[in-house]
Amino acid sequence: MTGNEHEGSGVRQRRTKSVTRAEEIQKAEQRARRSQPDKPCHRPRDSLFSWSSGFDNFTGFVNWGFLLLGIGGIRLLLENFIKYGIRVDPRQWYFFLSGKNDGGKEHPSILLICYSVVPVMLCLLIEKGLAMDIMAHGPGMVFHVVNLIVMVLMPMVVIHVKESGFSLIGAMYVCMLYAILFLKLWSYVQVNMWCRLSAKSKTTSQGRMRRQSFSYTDLHSATDAKQNGGDSDETRHDINGGGKALVQYPDNLNLFDLYYYILAPTLCYELNFPRTQRIRKRFLIKRILEVLVGCQVVMSLFQQWMIPSVKNSLIPFSNMDVAKASERLLKLAIPNHLMWLCFFYLSFHSYLNLMGELLHFADRNFYCDWWNANNIDTFWRSWNMPVHRWAVRHLYIPVVEMGYSKTTASITVFFISAFFHEYLVSVPLKTFKIWAFMGMMGQIPLSVLSKYVEKHWGARSGNIVVWASLIIGQPLCIMMYYHDYVVTHFGETLLEDYSVV
Amino acid sequence: MTGNEHEGSGVRQRRTKSVTRAEEIQKAEQRARRSQPDKPCHRPRDSLFSWSSGFDNFTGFVNWGFLLLGIGGIRLLLENFIKYGIRVDPRQWYFFLSGKNDGGKEHPSILLICYSVVPVMLCLLIEKGLAMDIMAHGPGMVFHVVNLIVMVLMPMVVIHVKESGFSLIGAMYVCMLYAILFLKLWSYVQVNMWCRLSAKSKTTSQGRMRRQSFSYTDLHSATDAKQNGGDSDETRHDINGGGKALVQYPDNLNLFDLYYYILAPTLCYELNFPRTQRIRKRFLIKRILEVLVGCQVVMSLFQQWMIPSVKNSLIPFSNMDVAKASERLLKLAIPNHLMWLCFFYLSFHSYLNLMGELLHFADRNFYCDWWNANNIDTFWRSWNMPVHRWAVRHLYIPVVEMGYSKTTASITVFFISAFFHEYLVSVPLKTFKIWAFMGMMGQIPLSVLSKYVEKHWGARSGNIVVWASLIIGQPLCIMMYYHDYVVTHFGETLLEDYSVV
Repeated sequence: MTGNEHEGSGVRQRRTKSVTRAEEIQKAEQRARRSQPDKPCHRPRDSLFSWSSGFDNFTGFVNWGFLLLGIGGIRLLLENFIKYGIRVDPRQWYFFLSGKNDGGKEHPSILLICYSVVPVMLCLLIEKGLAMDIMAHGPGMVFHVVNLIVMVLMPMVVIHVKESGFSLIGAMYVCMLYAILFLKLWSYVQVNMWCRLSAKSKTTSQGRMRRQSFSYTDLHSATDAKQNGGDSDETRHDINGGGKALVQYPDNLNLFDLYYYILAPTLCYELNFPRTQRIRKRFLIKRILEVLVGCQVVMSLFQQWMIPSVKNSLIPFSNMDVAKASERLLKLAIPNHLMWLCFFYLSFHSYLNLMGELLHFADRNFYCDWWNANNIDTFWRSWNMPVHRWAVRHLYIPVVEMGYSKTTASITVFFISAFFHEYLVSVPLKTFKIWAFMGMMGQIPLSVLSKYVEKHWGARSGNIVVWASLIIGQPLCIMMYYHDYVVTHFGETLLEDYSVV
Repeated sequence: MTGNEHEGSGVRQRRTKSVTRAEEIQKAEQRARRSQPDKPCHRPRDSLFSWSSGFDNFTGFVNWGFLLLGIGGIRLLLENFIKYGIRVDPRQWYFFLSGKNDGGKEHPSILLICYSVVPVMLCLLIEKGLAMDIMAHGPGMVFHVVNLIVMVLMPMVVIHVKESGFSLIGAMYVCMLYAILFLKLWSYVQVNMWCRLSAKSKTTSQGRMRRQSFSYTDLHSATDAKQNGGDSDETRHDINGGGKALVQYPDNLNLFDLYYYILAPTLCYELNFPRTQRIRKRFLIKRILEVLVGCQVVMSLFQQWMIPSVKNSLIPFSNMDVAKASERLLKLAIPNHLMWLCFFYLSFHSYLNLMGELLHFADRNFYCDWWNANNIDTFWRSWNMPVHRWAVRHLYIPVVEMGYSKTTASITVFFISAFFHEYLVSVPLKTFKIWAFMGMMGQIPLSVLSKYVEKHWGARSGNIVVWASLIIGQPLCIMMYYHDYVVTHFGETLLEDYSVV
């Protein structure tokens, strides 16, 4: 933008000196000139874009940038309405949410949501059994693992069997629910195991000391635990809320505590969550409004903008027409990215804060400032704090404590994360390709690249690489999946039909 | 963006206090919790988008904005190439510059440029005559006015007569040249008049004193002036460059001085322009490269992007289809605005600095920081400094000195400015509509609006209004002219033909 002169500082200083001397001469000249009858109006000055002017206030161009962005957005909106008319259809939202397909008569999503109570209850029962020493540690863990694996496979099987009865979105959020339940129960089982082992080692060491005098310690502690387990949990929680007594294992093993945890906006189980004193009503109302309005906006963007863009990009993508496919990809990138931003705000700010406020849950650190992330790693560490915290507490640290290296632990975290990304996309689409998995794996070279850029080109460039990968990477994966989805489910003939139109 | 709570500061303080107390309690709780075996990882925190978090580092979103802008730009470019192919045609540039139309055999633009020497010479001759008292003040001024008016009408007549032989761009820059010459000669005549009057009042007062002793003072001063006028001007200028003697009236009335002024990047004549000591070669080479490359970029943008956009918007504009016309207008706005920005940089930074460097002209204040302008008035005062300075020195102040009010002076400046805008557009287009004139007049209500916005909504909003008027206003005028141009020159039938296609 500026016609800067990139010269050595020596030259610069010399020039500044000569400029000052020249300025002195010119000032004297100016004084002489000012007495002239021709009303002089010129004096030696540099243009603002010249390096030598030292001017650097270009804040107006930031407003310019956002204004151009706004104008571009309005134009795209107008173009969209002219081309496609109004595509927003409120009836479809009902189908989306109930998981009912156009032809189907059942509501399989709702049935699957109701079914999710079963593995939760099983998990609690196994824990109770373990706590009361009805069940040994080994078989208990086997039951837990089987229960969790069966749970995570359930939507895959149901969606595969009831193929025609499922809408895409309905299937997607059922998978999301089951994935979240899986992570939550994993944490629940692991934390209870830590407590049990800690209690056992305490009783063992106490027992070792006491065994010299008494011998019914073990029995006593077991009955003690049983009596405590029968206490009113609500009064306990009230006491905790007032900042006094803490719930101790195994008093926490009850339905109320477990469902509080399942509804709470976190994936990491704790016996005593930090609590807020009161529900802020204004805050709550704002979050409710945001969720209600925001969902409509996302749905409308999806129906009006995403679906036509994705459909239009099918042919160029299939024909490997690079110029047209790139143009389509970039056109898809904008609505997709806007939807993702809306979705992020809605889920991570509005919805999770809403749940937190309702449940007096005090830790609202659902996201850090990922928008300022200067490399991909920082982005992944900061955009989704519940999952990040889960991965560190329940996967990374345990793997390291088991004696493996930190690299192994990182790779494990990465693979589990990639698996769940694949699960959330492949199962609803019924297309078992590995694009999402590959997308996650692609983060590794991208991370190296972004760190290189950050180191050599500055933090700002690193931030731009992170944003670019977000804006371009997602629609690329979406296109690949949609292409394969159409090819697998409607055959190549449909593609040919399309290209005639 | 942020879910801020807009509440009274009293409420805010109370909340902060209660938050601190709650924090203390929660800290004590935290200490107790940290000793628990469940490895607690939660602590009370607010989400970053919540007002209460106090977080305000959203710099990453500035990068995001410019990245989205870049992606949108690349997509538009791709879309353009897919739709229109490559339209850049180097041969057409030759026609543009020579003013030769496809059918014509002459180079009327070049002829008109050569003819421009005639009024300049006439102007110098009249000045010489006035200085040597061959001509009286009154008739001299009449001659000047007639000369200038004939000059400004010349391109209008030639373009009207040789209608078919003129390309649009060729005609446009000839008009630009004649308009600049008009302003320059106006300044030249006025400054020489000031000097003459000042010299006369001096000689009259000196004469009154000397008349008592000698009586040939007047004759002496006239011959003295004549002798001085015959001096070598080059040596005089060198002396001036070294910061010593100043040129005095009427020594300045010679061809070298006049042509230095006509080539110099200013519209305000002075007898002794501030001069630089040396030509910075790196600076000069950069400016030359910018002019050469930049012209190609502007021409390519024009051929590849502007012409198709303008042509496409003709039908919706003619049919008064509001949605389509708006979409077209916004689509036209982007390339038009980019071209204007390139044009601004090329003319006001590259070209004028190039001329200034070559001519040792030291005052490079060709533009101020209009991009930060918070209202329309500031914008008009800062984007085009040569014209602004001319208007203040040669129109506003003289009108005020003649005894008129400042409002009258401002309106006079505005009307002359509006006339020249109209002249520069209507004459080359051969369409005498008043859209450009109305556009200039529309700046008055816009100025009131922008000042209101600046005062009530803050400086940033004022700046956005200025940018919006720039980005949207220009393409609107262009569309109106192009529509009328097509209707007048090709008739309504063509519009109908177009709409069939």
